[in-house]
Amino acid sequence: MQLGLSVSDSDVSSFTPLVVLELADDTKAEAITWLLNRIRDKQQNGGAELLVNQLLFPAQDDQKPNPNVFVVGSTLQRLLNGAEDVGLFKEFQDGTMRGFTYANRESFNDFNGDGEGFLSDAECQYIIKHELDTLRAKNEEHVPGYPKLKLYPGKSVVRRLQSKGVLNQYFPLHNKEDLKRLSFSWYKKFKLSFQPLDDIRHYFGEGLALYFGFLEYFTFALVPMALIGIPYYLFDWEDYDKYVLFAVFNLVWSTVFLEVWKRCSATLAYGWGTLSRKKAFEEPRAGFHGALGFNPVTGREEPVYPSSKRQLRIYLVSVPFVLLCLYLSFYVMMVYFDMEFWAINIYNEDPSIATSILLFVPSIIYAVVIEIMNLLYRFAAEFLTDWENHRLESSFQNHLVLKVLVFNFVNCFASLFYIAFVMQDMVLLRQSLATLLITSQILNQVMEAFLPYWLQRRRNKKVHKRMRRLMGDKELPLLGQVKLETEMNTYLGTFDDYLEQFLLFGYVSLFSCVYPLAAVLVVLNNITEVYSDAFKMCHVFKRPFSEPATNIGVWQLAFETMSIIAVVTNCALIGLSPQVKAYFPESDTQLILIVVAIEHVLLAFKFILAFVIPDVPKHIQVNLAKLEFDSLEAFKKRVKNEQLNPDWHDCSFINTKQKIYSRRMP
Amino acid sequence: MQLGLSVSDSDVSSFTPLVVLELADDTKAEAITWLLNRIRDKQQNGGAELLVNQLLFPAQDDQKPNPNVFVVGSTLQRLLNGAEDVGLFKEFQDGTMRGFTYANRESFNDFNGDGEGFLSDAECQYIIKHELDTLRAKNEEHVPGYPKLKLYPGKSVVRRLQSKGVLNQYFPLHNKEDLKRLSFSWYKKFKLSFQPLDDIRHYFGEGLALYFGFLEYFTFALVPMALIGIPYYLFDWEDYDKYVLFAVFNLVWSTVFLEVWKRCSATLAYGWGTLSRKKAFEEPRAGFHGALGFNPVTGREEPVYPSSKRQLRIYLVSVPFVLLCLYLSFYVMMVYFDMEFWAINIYNEDPSIATSILLFVPSIIYAVVIEIMNLLYRFAAEFLTDWENHRLESSFQNHLVLKVLVFNFVNCFASLFYIAFVMQDMVLLRQSLATLLITSQILNQVMEAFLPYWLQRRRNKKVHKRMRRLMGDKELPLLGQVKLETEMNTYLGTFDDYLEQFLLFGYVSLFSCVYPLAAVLVVLNNITEVYSDAFKMCHVFKRPFSEPATNIGVWQLAFETMSIIAVVTNCALIGLSPQVKAYFPESDTQLILIVVAIEHVLLAFKFILAFVIPDVPKHIQVNLAKLEFDSLEAFKKRVKNEQLNPDWHDCSFINTKQKIYSRRMP
Repeated sequence: MQLGLSVSDSDVSSFTPLVVLELADDTKAEAITWLLNRIRDKQQNGGAELLVNQLLFPAQDDQKPNPNVFVVGSTLQRLLNGAEDVGLFKEFQDGTMRGFTYANRESFNDFNGDGEGFLSDAECQYIIKHELDTLRAKNEEHVPGYPKLKLYPGKSVVRRLQSKGVLNQYFPLHNKEDLKRLSFSWYKKFKLSFQPLDDIRHYFGEGLALYFGFLEYFTFALVPMALIGIPYYLFDWEDYDKYVLFAVFNLVWSTVFLEVWKRCSATLAYGWGTLSRKKAFEEPRAGFHGALGFNPVTGREEPVYPSSKRQLRIYLVSVPFVLLCLYLSFYVMMVYFDMEFWAINIYNEDPSIATSILLFVPSIIYAVVIEIMNLLYRFAAEFLTDWENHRLESSFQNHLVLKVLVFNFVNCFASLFYIAFVMQDMVLLRQSLATLLITSQILNQVMEAFLPYWLQRRRNKKVHKRMRRLMGDKELPLLGQVKLETEMNTYLGTFDDYLEQFLLFGYVSLFSCVYPLAAVLVVLNNITEVYSDAFKMCHVFKRPFSEPATNIGVWQLAFETMSIIAVVTNCALIGLSPQVKAYFPESDTQLILIVVAIEHVLLAFKFILAFVIPDVPKHIQVNLAKLEFDSLEAFKKRVKNEQLNPDWHDCSFINTKQKIYSRRMP
Repeated sequence: MQLGLSVSDSDVSSFTPLVVLELADDTKAEAITWLLNRIRDKQQNGGAELLVNQLLFPAQDDQKPNPNVFVVGSTLQRLLNGAEDVGLFKEFQDGTMRGFTYANRESFNDFNGDGEGFLSDAECQYIIKHELDTLRAKNEEHVPGYPKLKLYPGKSVVRRLQSKGVLNQYFPLHNKEDLKRLSFSWYKKFKLSFQPLDDIRHYFGEGLALYFGFLEYFTFALVPMALIGIPYYLFDWEDYDKYVLFAVFNLVWSTVFLEVWKRCSATLAYGWGTLSRKKAFEEPRAGFHGALGFNPVTGREEPVYPSSKRQLRIYLVSVPFVLLCLYLSFYVMMVYFDMEFWAINIYNEDPSIATSILLFVPSIIYAVVIEIMNLLYRFAAEFLTDWENHRLESSFQNHLVLKVLVFNFVNCFASLFYIAFVMQDMVLLRQSLATLLITSQILNQVMEAFLPYWLQRRRNKKVHKRMRRLMGDKELPLLGQVKLETEMNTYLGTFDDYLEQFLLFGYVSLFSCVYPLAAVLVVLNNITEVYSDAFKMCHVFKRPFSEPATNIGVWQLAFETMSIIAVVTNCALIGLSPQVKAYFPESDTQLILIVVAIEHVLLAFKFILAFVIPDVPKHIQVNLAKLEFDSLEAFKKRVKNEQLNPDWHDCSFINTKQKIYSRRMP
């Protein structure tokens, strides 16, 4: 079966292929014809007006290749129109960022000739994804050839096909040349420099670039902590337990760190044009299902799922499950303490090198168990959140993040809190912290980068061998590349990467005053993390679609919550320190009251600071205001014109006072 | 001198006069001619296209009347267009609130015939105010006749005239019939009912209606507290100091109270159409001055004032001044305690009725002194904030509110905190609280309503007498009314009213567990407050311009801060109670730790609660989403049309992804 323009060996593709679309290999022919027609159809007729070609892989001896692999591309003109559709912001000739419009394309910087090179690869792919996602059912009752696969007018066709298993996947293709250039400037040269964030954003989009920006910022912010920590550690400064100064520093640092990041991220997002861009109307997620009903917003018939049912699932199943897991985590912690005592007893009975190594064994085992529990819980949480059947991806993500964060926090830090405040054993705290930190870092790097890399290399070799056996010497770059990338793992987003940084931030901000080397370890970890993350993005995973992110979203909140907990913890640690206790030899009460008072003042100060420091730097505020002012001016001009020319009344549905971003009218 | 259409005795006005404009009585004739022409001029020529007439008061024996008093009105058509300009939201035929457009006026509920009665009086006056405020200088260099009164192109003419003292005042006229109807349903009938919030909003606008809504809500919310408080007080329940239960109730109440109010206020604001309405581009405030420079946003020449200078004024003058005032307040407090001890000593030496009354004297004096200090400080704060020269009214307001709140909080509550936590004397606390509360309530009612009313009545009588002497029996309702209202005091906004409620909320939420009658007193106060406030709005002050408010603004934050302080205070009071102390006979430390732990849990719970409860009720969220969806649909239709008809390109400056509120296209 061969549909449309097939790609023969000589004529690999008549256009630059940007996105790969893989349908199930048993998809019915009429469904394919219908889908391709819809994709190719003119926009006026409700099509996506994109170019699409079938890729035919030569048959192989051991297995039949999937015949239903397509590459999608587009004309330049269509992409530029699409850029307007998705509301892309680009640099205007006056240096501000403005919503791109095709009509005044010439007024944008970097727009030369017909606009070749104006849009980055990632942007083109994002536009194609958007156009595919918003390909909506018209009056078809069901997908041709699949009477049971109902379609609802106005709902996304691609999401429907995806959730029903007809569409296996669609992903953007790597651009080998750009990738080579990027990877060279990113991680192939060993020199002390900032990451090429703009290049990363160009290639992978804003979401990922913001993650790497945060990683870099976090690492740099840790350097002063690390620099103070090393002499503390090396020279047994002031006898270890005089850590009050360090705790105070910690406190101030963790507050200022997050406030400054907000401004940094606003600056980055403004430069990338995502800051003033509005969110699109959110489509239901692919996995959402429900009985047929009426959407209260659109009034259209579509699957709806009662919110009460979802609440029941959340409160009667998910919450008890999370609590059970937390209990389990506590139980494992208590087992760890038993092991710890047992090891100490053995060491005390017979102090030798072997038994002193044994002292670290429980912590290492516990660290490994924690990682495994986190991993298992992660799957369970994903399953449960999926089962809760959230309508929107954002609400799905919020519930998932909440579940995972609570468990990971308790799992990783409960034992440390127990040691610090119940056992009040600072030596053990130091030792546990070190073991936990180092073990989890090593495990993380292995699980996250080296294991997938190793698996990927094996797979690559197999594919290469197969391809060479089939084609002989003939070079088939596109076919080979598509084959290879189709089999790569999908990058599941920045969730795990942020989670890891969140836990590291916790180790540093909560307890680093008792183990000043923590910051040093985290800095070292993050330096290798940059390289391994960069490598895994470039070579281990499928290229992800770019995501236009304005900030690090829910993670900002998570880090801020952690920094509040850090204030409480550090104050408590200060109160427990012998140095401070020495000031109040007769009365514990007074000491506690003073510590509590200081803690309250610090918390209040933190909130005031967060309130007073503007989240967006002044010069960007001015630029945003300029934009708004210009749009109002343009609007006024329009209203004036309208009064002179009443034919214009048809576009009068826009309200005067809305923030409408516009080009500056001449 | 007589300009334009003068108002003779028989023909009082050819249109319904809505707004009074009073210029200084020595204003030059050419300036008046110019201003009237600008007001009357067509919108195309940059005028306001309003109707304006001069009012000529007959000369009086004792003083010459101001000849430069004008009444402003408008045609219905102009008002409807103005409603679109200011972005008024009205109820659409499908029951949702939508931005009014003249083009599809017929699709709005309550629009009958030519639209008579569609806009309320307050809305008409607000529209006229908006049109007057946005009457902008064109290419005039200065006001005719005043070479020194420079004008800047694009800047508001009226604000300029106002800040230079040429325009004395402009205010909306009362509508006697509506006022009669409103005052009857509002405060003239003594029955237990809700306030006619919709009528209040109709007559005075959303800002004031929200204040009265809040007052009512707060009073109702206090009723359960009061109901529990009465038996506590009357039957010496559980010996007074067993107030733990009450404190816990207090805690929960103050949290839930504010969260529920947010939803109530969103519901009200949605129904009044202000929730989804966007803020207009803010003009500089009338008093703002500075050297000539370039506005970074508009690029136009206008007075600018460097932010660094303002910061210097704030940190080098205002902050030290506030601190000095706080120190003074503390000093007065210490004097009060000295007086208190002196009174107690006298009583102990000779316990009689006279000396037992003497016991209350220091508290009463202190309460009066506090009120006086608050009043004086208020003037100083206004002067200082004005001197700081803020460009925008909103930033002026924020700085003023902050200054006044901090001082009032310390001034009113410092002594109570001192008694509760330093002296730990619950009997004295109870007594001071009662005296402070009662005295300040009585003072407030007198200062706020009865004193101004009395002054106003005297003035009214004088005016009436004069008018009667002049005109004899001839009735001149308009002239008389304008004369009367011109001399009324200006209502300075809801600031003082909210401040009073804020302090009452403080008394109840902070300390009512030691004096359960506090809630009862506040309820009683608020019931009379409703009547006296309503009366003062209707008869004591000039009618204020309506203010389209979405919520109670910075006061929500102030009340929330107070409720956080209440958590801390109540936990501390619980910890101090003999009842709780009895549980930990041997160890104070343990008690404190437990109290602190509970406090932290409560605070965390409070934040989670505030985060989880949506600020806008579900059904309104759905309505807002519907609006947004419809506008996107309409926009898509427009884009389609545009593709068919390329002439439309001129309105393509609006970005696809903006939230544009639109009528639902047929």
